[in-house]
Amino acid sequence: MSSSDIFTGEIIGTAVLILLGGGVCAAVTLKSSKARNAGWLAITFGWGFAVLTGAYISAPLSGAHLNPAVTLGLAIEGGTEWSDVPTYLAGQLLGAMIGATLVWLAYYGQFQAHLTDPEIVGDPADKPVEGPHNGAANAGPVLGIFSTGPEIRNAIQNLTTEIIGTAVLVLAILTQGLNGDGKGLGVIGVLITSLVVVGLGLSLGGPTGYAINPFRDLGPRIVHSLLPLPNKGGSDWAYAWVPVVGPLAGAALAGGLYNLAFA
Amino acid sequence: MSSSDIFTGEIIGTAVLILLGGGVCAAVTLKSSKARNAGWLAITFGWGFAVLTGAYISAPLSGAHLNPAVTLGLAIEGGTEWSDVPTYLAGQLLGAMIGATLVWLAYYGQFQAHLTDPEIVGDPADKPVEGPHNGAANAGPVLGIFSTGPEIRNAIQNLTTEIIGTAVLVLAILTQGLNGDGKGLGVIGVLITSLVVVGLGLSLGGPTGYAINPFRDLGPRIVHSLLPLPNKGGSDWAYAWVPVVGPLAGAALAGGLYNLAFA
Amino acid sequence: MSSSDIFTGEIIGTAVLILLGGGVCAAVTLKSSKARNAGWLAITFGWGFAVLTGAYISAPLSGAHLNPAVTLGLAIEGGTEWSDVPTYLAGQLLGAMIGATLVWLAYYGQFQAHLTDPEIVGDPADKPVEGPHNGAANAGPVLGIFSTGPEIRNAIQNLTTEIIGTAVLVLAILTQGLNGDGKGLGVIGVLITSLVVVGLGLSLGGPTGYAINPFRDLGPRIVHSLLPLPNKGGSDWAYAWVPVVGPLAGAALAGGLYNLAFA
Amino acid sequence: MSSSDIFTGEIIGTAVLILLGGGVCAAVTLKSSKARNAGWLAITFGWGFAVLTGAYISAPLSGAHLNPAVTLGLAIEGGTEWSDVPTYLAGQLLGAMIGATLVWLAYYGQFQAHLTDPEIVGDPADKPVEGPHNGAANAGPVLGIFSTGPEIRNAIQNLTTEIIGTAVLVLAILTQGLNGDGKGLGVIGVLITSLVVVGLGLSLGGPTGYAINPFRDLGPRIVHSLLPLPNKGGSDWAYAWVPVVGPLAGAALAGGLYNLAFA
Repeated sequence: MSSSDIFTGEIIGTAVLILLGGGVCAAVTLKSSKARNAGWLAITFGWGFAVLTGAYISAPLSGAHLNPAVTLGLAIEGGTEWSDVPTYLAGQLLGAMIGATLVWLAYYGQFQAHLTDPEIVGDPADKPVEGPHNGAANAGPVLGIFSTGPEIRNAIQNLTTEIIGTAVLVLAILTQGLNGDGKGLGVIGVLITSLVVVGLGLSLGGPTGYAINPFRDLGPRIVHSLLPLPNKGGSDWAYAWVPVVGPLAGAALAGGLYNLAFA
Repeated sequence: MSSSDIFTGEIIGTAVLILLGGGVCAAVTLKSSKARNAGWLAITFGWGFAVLTGAYISAPLSGAHLNPAVTLGLAIEGGTEWSDVPTYLAGQLLGAMIGATLVWLAYYGQFQAHLTDPEIVGDPADKPVEGPHNGAANAGPVLGIFSTGPEIRNAIQNLTTEIIGTAVLVLAILTQGLNGDGKGLGVIGVLITSLVVVGLGLSLGGPTGYAINPFRDLGPRIVHSLLPLPNKGGSDWAYAWVPVVGPLAGAALAGGLYNLAFA
Repeated sequence: MSSSDIFTGEIIGTAVLILLGGGVCAAVTLKSSKARNAGWLAITFGWGFAVLTGAYISAPLSGAHLNPAVTLGLAIEGGTEWSDVPTYLAGQLLGAMIGATLVWLAYYGQFQAHLTDPEIVGDPADKPVEGPHNGAANAGPVLGIFSTGPEIRNAIQNLTTEIIGTAVLVLAILTQGLNGDGKGLGVIGVLITSLVVVGLGLSLGGPTGYAINPFRDLGPRIVHSLLPLPNKGGSDWAYAWVPVVGPLAGAALAGGLYNLAFA
Repeated sequence: MSSSDIFTGEIIGTAVLILLGGGVCAAVTLKSSKARNAGWLAITFGWGFAVLTGAYISAPLSGAHLNPAVTLGLAIEGGTEWSDVPTYLAGQLLGAMIGATLVWLAYYGQFQAHLTDPEIVGDPADKPVEGPHNGAANAGPVLGIFSTGPEIRNAIQNLTTEIIGTAVLVLAILTQGLNGDGKGLGVIGVLITSLVVVGLGLSLGGPTGYAINPFRDLGPRIVHSLLPLPNKGGSDWAYAWVPVVGPLAGAALAGGLYNLAFA
């Protein structure tokens, strides 16, 4: 793969991933959305099929990492050159920011209606945080559409949850080569990975909202801080390092375990 | 593919698509349906498996476009001859109208019970519009079973949402050739496309009900205007151009992006 | 395939189909089931994966028809010998009856608790019929676990719904040969067929509970009439011909259409 | 396969299976989980994709049994050497215990919040057992996250349900070789098996919570008895033999039936 293909593929694929992943959070959260309150199954299937779509589109160009944790795991395992890592990361961060911006465009009217409804944002100090992805005392009412947040805020617990979830994800991706799908993602591998992500959400999403991808969280958080949303509240930067460090640690763990047990 | 196979395949495949897609909207909307109020997940999976079924049946004949946006995207990319486009479109529109008529036949008793229930249609001026796909002040109580409608009516916003959603769909279909499924839809490609459509519904269906297909909206709207349904209300022709123009623009965008980035 | 393999395969496969299909209806209906009131999505996915499991197990032996409508469609198309049809049908009816009996054994305690609860069966004349598959004035409180029933009882409407649904199912199965899965069901074909069945349930199950298979309805109805269930009520024999005749007519329609359009 | 690969593969795969399977029960049960009360569909898809993930990761090393019932069925059929059985079982039990411990780590804060909430554990004698997997008078308030329990406690009924469910599972796995996926689990076989498990949960999970795997129940039950959880209540050892004996009997039945009908 050329650097240019990697860069382009990761931009497009990660943009699609975050557009659809953030999109389902917008869909179930925002006022005047047909999917409002569609529930946790909708969120987890939505994120899983976001991975499916983003990975299917970008697999031919970049191998569809779409996630610094995946890139790190594959670099440790040897399937990805360390010299390509910066290109992967640059494309992923840029793509994640584009994707989050597209969510805003697709749900522009809903964001406006939601954030100007006094029932919802009236007096921020009085209002419980809404939406399935928040749980943060200092988080804005729509931050959960962009970034993750813990239900119980405790760095060690939250890191642990993210490490465990990401390690499973990266282990599944690393074993694809052994399952006969070839290195990178084959078509069936893309499908199975996306269902693994549905499963990770269902099973390990409860405590932190399962970032399991540093830029899935950081990119949209940056966009949240930049967008001209009315009454948007804080971007909870105090928590922002957890969904970056946790997934990278989980990926390193998975890469090491893979080299020990499978290679 | 012969013109005759294209025409026949698109009629049958689009009829099945709209029969099952409109069918799930009837199932969750109408009185005396066992699936009434089954929720947004039912609608999105229902539409996704409608694509699966229609595409699986028609793939051997016509390559299973079933959607003018797909045909346009493939024509821009070069996988479909421009000279075949009129045949595709004719089959799709005819098929969509047949499919919508079959929904009416399959749910005939439910339509009658629903539209003659004073609780539901009593005084149209007093009643909120029902069902997951409406959101239109001038829409009839069952129009959402046939066509899409925005929750917040704003042409630019609604176009934007349809453009974004359709661009993702067409991009996914264009990259199938690169994913080793061959041009047109291979079996695994049909399956993945159908799950992509589930994902698009979950993630981007909130604002407009995701037409992402001009004739999925226009064909059934024509049928709605023609059917002898009691108290059916208007067919919301004021909105009808949005789910035609938006998806076509999205497809053109995806075709251009594909030729730029992937070819 | 030998007659003996066909007979054995159809018995085992149809027994598994009805065990899991009837099982999900028991699971969401009966008192003291963990899945009580799990909803329409649970029922439709449950039936779809019942097809998956039964077909996957029996495909190597008999090609996994499991349904007289499928056998009829394949005989019209030419993929199945007319001389094998009686063997298929005998295995299917026997298997369906075994499967319904196994549902009773797996949920024995739940059937007893449900049917002896005065809240549920107290005075049959006063009680609305319960469960997602009933809708019949003269149906017993658990008949919906065994057989289908219409929400609105009208033979022509009910036949129409069953004909349309079954025609789509059989058309999808007939085109499998053209989709490169070989005649009969290949592995991917089994998977796709099962998701088509989920889709048919979501989209066309509302009016009649989608028999789309004569013996899926008749076999369990016979078992319902024979089992020593307390307060079980009638087996609604007046309706029993509809889910036999409708699916067979739909299969014949699909077989004819297939030979016209695809052959 | 070497003994060392079998042992390692079964440890890792079963740990992932129980981490995600127990995880979804924690997610829908515990206070301060974003997925609380997500419902039966979430549980059944969660367990199915737990099988998918665990089996996909371990298939290249050990063939992904992850279940003594599967090992027994394959040994009876001849696909697994009897001399490898102890290695499989040792890896599975150890893996199941590791997985259950990881659930505790991932949901540590939620367990603490849940088990110290007076509304939930106040006076154990007064409180109904909570959660979808309990149903046991002498079970602790979070035992359902670890182990299964019957809704109606009757050894013969509970054994019957587990025998029937496991026999279907093992039969599906044994026929994989005939479906062209090769012995052990091929990639498509892994996917289909995981959906079969979703189906078994939906259809046969109602009475006992579908152990269908002796160590899926026993390993986490041991961990429940050892973990320092506050107010955890009993581990219901009186029931513990049922989900061991039932699945093994079901597997033996399936192995015998397979050798009779398919070999």
